[in-house]
Amino acid sequence: MSLVSRDPVLLTPGPLTTSLQTKSAMMRDWGSWDASFNAVTAKIRKQLLDIISGHETHVCVPMQGSGTFSVEAAVNTLVPRNGHMLVLINGAYGKRLARLVEMMRRKVTVFETAEDVPTTAQDVERLLAADKSITHVGLIHCETSTGILNPLADIAEVVAHHRRGLIIDAMSSFGALEINAQKIPFDAVIAASGKCIEGPPGMGFVLARKEVLEKCAGNSLSLSLDLYDQWVYMEKTTQWRFTPPTHIVVAFHEALNQFFAEGGQPARLARYTQNYETLMAGMTELGLTQFLKREIQAPIIVTINAPADAKYNFKDFYERVRDKGFILYPGKLTQAETFRVGCIGAIGQAEMRSAVNAVRDTLDEMGIRRGSKD
Amino acid sequence: MSLVSRDPVLLTPGPLTTSLQTKSAMMRDWGSWDASFNAVTAKIRKQLLDIISGHETHVCVPMQGSGTFSVEAAVNTLVPRNGHMLVLINGAYGKRLARLVEMMRRKVTVFETAEDVPTTAQDVERLLAADKSITHVGLIHCETSTGILNPLADIAEVVAHHRRGLIIDAMSSFGALEINAQKIPFDAVIAASGKCIEGPPGMGFVLARKEVLEKCAGNSLSLSLDLYDQWVYMEKTTQWRFTPPTHIVVAFHEALNQFFAEGGQPARLARYTQNYETLMAGMTELGLTQFLKREIQAPIIVTINAPADAKYNFKDFYERVRDKGFILYPGKLTQAETFRVGCIGAIGQAEMRSAVNAVRDTLDEMGIRRGSKD
Repeated sequence: MSLVSRDPVLLTPGPLTTSLQTKSAMMRDWGSWDASFNAVTAKIRKQLLDIISGHETHVCVPMQGSGTFSVEAAVNTLVPRNGHMLVLINGAYGKRLARLVEMMRRKVTVFETAEDVPTTAQDVERLLAADKSITHVGLIHCETSTGILNPLADIAEVVAHHRRGLIIDAMSSFGALEINAQKIPFDAVIAASGKCIEGPPGMGFVLARKEVLEKCAGNSLSLSLDLYDQWVYMEKTTQWRFTPPTHIVVAFHEALNQFFAEGGQPARLARYTQNYETLMAGMTELGLTQFLKREIQAPIIVTINAPADAKYNFKDFYERVRDKGFILYPGKLTQAETFRVGCIGAIGQAEMRSAVNAVRDTLDEMGIRRGSKD
Repeated sequence: MSLVSRDPVLLTPGPLTTSLQTKSAMMRDWGSWDASFNAVTAKIRKQLLDIISGHETHVCVPMQGSGTFSVEAAVNTLVPRNGHMLVLINGAYGKRLARLVEMMRRKVTVFETAEDVPTTAQDVERLLAADKSITHVGLIHCETSTGILNPLADIAEVVAHHRRGLIIDAMSSFGALEINAQKIPFDAVIAASGKCIEGPPGMGFVLARKEVLEKCAGNSLSLSLDLYDQWVYMEKTTQWRFTPPTHIVVAFHEALNQFFAEGGQPARLARYTQNYETLMAGMTELGLTQFLKREIQAPIIVTINAPADAKYNFKDFYERVRDKGFILYPGKLTQAETFRVGCIGAIGQAEMRSAVNAVRDTLDEMGIRRGSKD
């Protein structure tokens, strides 16, 4: 790698590019017991509730580990041991959610559509009407496998109408797409530090409906991932129950400050949309097309059909683009050869245009003629 | 806090003071899918096995989250669902281990001694001879509650003689005290990044006996904390199964490089021993005594009896010492009023002596007369 001493531009679904200011926050050691650190934790919890306008209804519980750890903690705690969860699947993260529910010995029913087909509110209406034993619905807001957007607001309304609990994996969308607890009914929304808030990876968080979480003592089969215990302990002591990733927490706080300074979710969505449009304008110039229809493609991570040329292979392509300073992401589809490009992180139009140029130079070097497989 | 812009000296059991070089490694973003990052993961795994001379018998599986997450992953994966674990307790971490075993629905038997009494090999011999249904023994090597050292080598020999599995929580001791897989038989030893290797907190690791781990598919009740799955996936792909804390991983690697450059475990033990002796020489000057007998006190975290003066209260004392740049740690005992001082981290005699001076000035400010409660 030629740029080993420079920060590469990460065009990935997270970890993503963080700002210098965010990284700099990690240059200090904090005592996890000290009041100054606990004040940072309290601020983060408040800021995350601000994003969903959730102070009256929800509480924020941060959790150590990757985003999946927080998803597991939410299910483990919010779904009773005799609960029954309907998991809506159109990609790898939906499948992962179904698997972890099953491993925790909760009953699970899956509803799967193709990777380019969103779940609809009609689907959920039909499924809930047909099976009264379903207690919870699990939805991936934006499925990172492809970047497909599922219609959260419509589905949430149906789930609430049937008086079931909704658990939203908003890992890829939180902070970029609007999720307002005053408009959308849900039991929990889950995301992580290293996504659209643009912090470093290492912690997740669950924004859970307080009146639901209050009744969840004793549900968890796991000590570490017991969201109820984590919440009660934090409320009582202001501290994390087990050692927090202190450097990550303070950097995440710094990233949240920048998020609000930029203008919050609407501003972030606007920048990512511009990133997406800059990217796709460039890809179109190169004859490359996106896998999903535009109306279901979130401006977060884009699946692009691989060049149709037989000389293309992802590994070589990836390494050449990387050596120019840009980290792409592999496709995750079985049915089509694709690669993915993230539009998120502390990057803007300039980085997106430079990435397009690096892709063009790479295709030229590889002698690949223009045009996607599709 | 008067020193808000300076790095405080953390005299805590972790998170602890890390070197500037270690923190600086966090100033770069890494793609978690990229070969350069995966090479760092591979190096860490090798380095950790080097520390226990375990390459022929053991494998290293890193895990996201705090140390407790790794302890839970080890138990969840290595103890079959019909297993029976004997947990040896003389402090809070032993109790925590017993609790998580129980929550995961494995049978647990506890053996508890007072917080200043190590478990002995004779105790374990008697307990294992009396109950053939015990499949595993859980031991806290150095119990952070007090800093007490349990006789690992002797206990390990007894457990091996009875052909049961030994799972060692070496959170506080790993890297500082010798644990050699060629001399001491065990199924798993567990520690974390933010302890005696002097990295930032945010990941743990399990060094597990390969021939044991190989047979553990399907034991885990948790997806995130499935050590077997994490291992198999990492072996196959060189990547972490779920998003790794990239900045923490590279900083931990940097800390490991410094660990070996310093001279490995013997050098680290020598420095910590010197820190401990400097601390206790100073505390003795101030009339303060340690809670544990010297022969069972590891030079890692020291429990000190609070001053006997009625004017002493920990909160005020703590804040005054903190404002001088030194973060102490509260006691965790119910039977005696104490505070704790960590001897670990990227600190040496100069910092320990300065800390003693800050304690002296604080006692003088508070008008506290010399002499511990004991």
